[in-house]
Amino acid sequence: MANKASKPTDALIGHDAWNIQLDKNGNLKHFLTTEGLGSDMLTRILDTAESFANVNEKSVKKVPLLRGKTIVNLFFEASTRTRTTFELAAKRLSADVLNINISTSATSKGETLLDTLKNIQAMHCDMFVVRHSDSGAAHFIANNVAPDISVINAGDGSHAHPTQAMLDMFTIRRRKGHDFGALRVAIVGDVMHSRVARSQIHALNTLNTGEVRVIAPRTLIPVDIEDMGVNVFYDLQNGIADADVVIMLRLQKERMQGAMLPSEQEFYHLYGMTEERLQVARPDAIVMHPGPINRGVEIDSSVADGPRSVILDQVSYGIAVRMAVMTMTLGREKENREPEDAR
Amino acid sequence: MANKASKPTDALIGHDAWNIQLDKNGNLKHFLTTEGLGSDMLTRILDTAESFANVNEKSVKKVPLLRGKTIVNLFFEASTRTRTTFELAAKRLSADVLNINISTSATSKGETLLDTLKNIQAMHCDMFVVRHSDSGAAHFIANNVAPDISVINAGDGSHAHPTQAMLDMFTIRRRKGHDFGALRVAIVGDVMHSRVARSQIHALNTLNTGEVRVIAPRTLIPVDIEDMGVNVFYDLQNGIADADVVIMLRLQKERMQGAMLPSEQEFYHLYGMTEERLQVARPDAIVMHPGPINRGVEIDSSVADGPRSVILDQVSYGIAVRMAVMTMTLGREKENREPEDAR
Amino acid sequence: MANKASKPTDALIGHDAWNIQLDKNGNLKHFLTTEGLGSDMLTRILDTAESFANVNEKSVKKVPLLRGKTIVNLFFEASTRTRTTFELAAKRLSADVLNINISTSATSKGETLLDTLKNIQAMHCDMFVVRHSDSGAAHFIANNVAPDISVINAGDGSHAHPTQAMLDMFTIRRRKGHDFGALRVAIVGDVMHSRVARSQIHALNTLNTGEVRVIAPRTLIPVDIEDMGVNVFYDLQNGIADADVVIMLRLQKERMQGAMLPSEQEFYHLYGMTEERLQVARPDAIVMHPGPINRGVEIDSSVADGPRSVILDQVSYGIAVRMAVMTMTLGREKENREPEDAR
Repeated sequence: MANKASKPTDALIGHDAWNIQLDKNGNLKHFLTTEGLGSDMLTRILDTAESFANVNEKSVKKVPLLRGKTIVNLFFEASTRTRTTFELAAKRLSADVLNINISTSATSKGETLLDTLKNIQAMHCDMFVVRHSDSGAAHFIANNVAPDISVINAGDGSHAHPTQAMLDMFTIRRRKGHDFGALRVAIVGDVMHSRVARSQIHALNTLNTGEVRVIAPRTLIPVDIEDMGVNVFYDLQNGIADADVVIMLRLQKERMQGAMLPSEQEFYHLYGMTEERLQVARPDAIVMHPGPINRGVEIDSSVADGPRSVILDQVSYGIAVRMAVMTMTLGREKENREPEDAR
Repeated sequence: MANKASKPTDALIGHDAWNIQLDKNGNLKHFLTTEGLGSDMLTRILDTAESFANVNEKSVKKVPLLRGKTIVNLFFEASTRTRTTFELAAKRLSADVLNINISTSATSKGETLLDTLKNIQAMHCDMFVVRHSDSGAAHFIANNVAPDISVINAGDGSHAHPTQAMLDMFTIRRRKGHDFGALRVAIVGDVMHSRVARSQIHALNTLNTGEVRVIAPRTLIPVDIEDMGVNVFYDLQNGIADADVVIMLRLQKERMQGAMLPSEQEFYHLYGMTEERLQVARPDAIVMHPGPINRGVEIDSSVADGPRSVILDQVSYGIAVRMAVMTMTLGREKENREPEDAR
Repeated sequence: MANKASKPTDALIGHDAWNIQLDKNGNLKHFLTTEGLGSDMLTRILDTAESFANVNEKSVKKVPLLRGKTIVNLFFEASTRTRTTFELAAKRLSADVLNINISTSATSKGETLLDTLKNIQAMHCDMFVVRHSDSGAAHFIANNVAPDISVINAGDGSHAHPTQAMLDMFTIRRRKGHDFGALRVAIVGDVMHSRVARSQIHALNTLNTGEVRVIAPRTLIPVDIEDMGVNVFYDLQNGIADADVVIMLRLQKERMQGAMLPSEQEFYHLYGMTEERLQVARPDAIVMHPGPINRGVEIDSSVADGPRSVILDQVSYGIAVRMAVMTMTLGREKENREPEDAR
């Protein structure tokens, strides 16, 4: 029952591994997981993102905060969408960006991962944005690179995807206000394989969300999920009743192992979000999805494109949240923000 | 006989589709086709390109006109050459460039094209440069993206390749002067499958070219081509007699369907351009080709590398023309052009 | 016995081909090989790199020396590592960088190499960084591009890899001082297939190194190697006795043809560098390797990660050396170096 993909997490990360995210002054140095960070820090990330969201909404978008810095996208797992958001965030901060697809490069020459990392860090890079199919990979890298390099986790196995979780928190705060305590949030779908869900639950708990629910078939719920302080529902209608926020998860077809799920049709029949089913949620409920969406599997097009959907807002805010994390981990969030083209 | 590849054009584009290229003030908003634009607009593009061609010819090449803008190369069909010219043009305008090869990314995860587009536009991009194997794709995208995003067609199926056509017009004007009415232009080769030829014919007509001829075997001439106001020739020597400009088309081997063409050898035998055949053209005739050239198929090396060839000038001017279209569609062509490295 | 891969060298490069590296004022125009350049020029490269190494070691890393210049990475042979170092060097000089992988682009459409080159140069690029599996390719390109384009050889077949050799010289000078005459340098491994070794030997000789030794099995030593002024050893211990610098070469598995080498295990048994074997070298000897290292084949991990290893320093200095060569070939090494983010 235990998620095979998450096994390395325990070994690699351990109980206090998240401490490495902060420097000795309590500032953010790496951003590997939402777990273990206090509400002050999460709120600071959201507030910093707020300043960049304003920048994003005007025509002037580029600021020189990270001019002269080198950010390396280290993608061990292909993801054009995620890589693009980090690349855009970096460029709008005036950083230089290197895209390195590791699977097709050095390691194919027989070099070890550690040798590859040490080589790239020897080139005086400032930040690694890491995507990897193994849980714990970003922690491993943060533990093994030079002290002056910041690591941002862009998704590791089924472990964590903290920037996605923070853009979700940002979206909720923009739509529902700053009092998370007044909110009931329902997370629907493949919780088992979802690094997004794990990072969301940690962030929602830290921000003192009123109630966090997960809704899925038994085979897609991790056995220890209730230890995370969430209420488990196997029935969709019961689960989203009176919810203020409904977060649909992507059915990670490529991560499904064996026959835990009968078919996409059956999933849609039982858990697919439709306008009709959404009636039991709060009238002003918002519907979220990390994308890319599987229309007609976890969500109906009428919902995805409907008035309650904030799915594309999530994408927009994602740039601002990544700009926030990048400047904070490099200690530059208080620097000059005079736009590039006004100089 | 009708070109199968162009079928979607009719459905997707329609009779007045080109109107979407202009905003309510009559300025260029998208650049999808040379069709439907007036001679004033085409001349404005050429004049703007002229200013960048000057920039290109000096050592100082970079201007801050599009600083802070994000330009996305959306290539659904691989073309390093075309992508490179747009990337260079964007960088010389100081824009940020994202290269996204769609075939290998989101759509492989089952996402629809429209979802992919909406996601990228949610990242606050300013321009999509689109290359697609389907005719009408650029129009479809322009019709379906946010009002503040400009779309430039970098080639769609057998429909249009307007920046190529405009760099050809630019080359002709530089060599033959501003009076297109005095010119006889002969287009030789696979007109049937050529988006370049279609865009050239529209532009030449709009600029009131004296005579436009197309020369090809019957199987490579669209049935309705004479409706476009061109004279059709099946014999090369008759067709290029007294021509001021001879434009060779690339034999689109990868687009040839079935047995419309016996062999490359036979094509060269009947339509390949040689020094000897070129004797019947005007003594000061120029020879053009959109590249990449098939030496010994549609053109002999002695012509391609000879004194009348302006093929490499076309490539140079292509950067200037793309810079012109990019600044015009973003309404920045009258802004500060102080070079970057003089600041 | 003769290295098949180096055959084209003789035909393409010839006896005085390196003269094309200098312009009529004796300044560096291309950087194709360390052969034929005087010690003044090599020292000038090292001194210029020294200024950039200082830049690299501070937090401010970006200088505007090549702002507005376009540098094209023309890689006919994939090498993420090498491409990355050149891309980083170019970006830290504020140049625009285009990465073009030729094998997957134009030439697959049947275009000749020369046509591809002429097209790219028509786009007004300033520099080609060339990597190719054929010896002599960089010279061929330098001989055939426009006079105002500089060519830097990033490795051609088994012929030369001059920037690697110069970063090695830089590393030696930093650790052992400016008097190469006092040094005994031992190069160990697959000399036969190594472009790195050839370029190192030329550079070491020009800098008047006290003694240069090569150590390898007979099958991996070129027949004419002693003509290059080196002493040949077949026994590792004899070869590295009293050496000040030990340079391990990478076992180029992908370049090995036929059965010149019994097995990796046997190579390690006879020539693999271990702490124990290193005892016969000078007590303060340094160990170098161009990377990526094959642990347990040509070098033991205890040596690679040990106190005498300068392998990662080589990588760091590699950026500075490439910045030096780029600015020198474009005649910009004496320009303003005010850092970007102080403006």
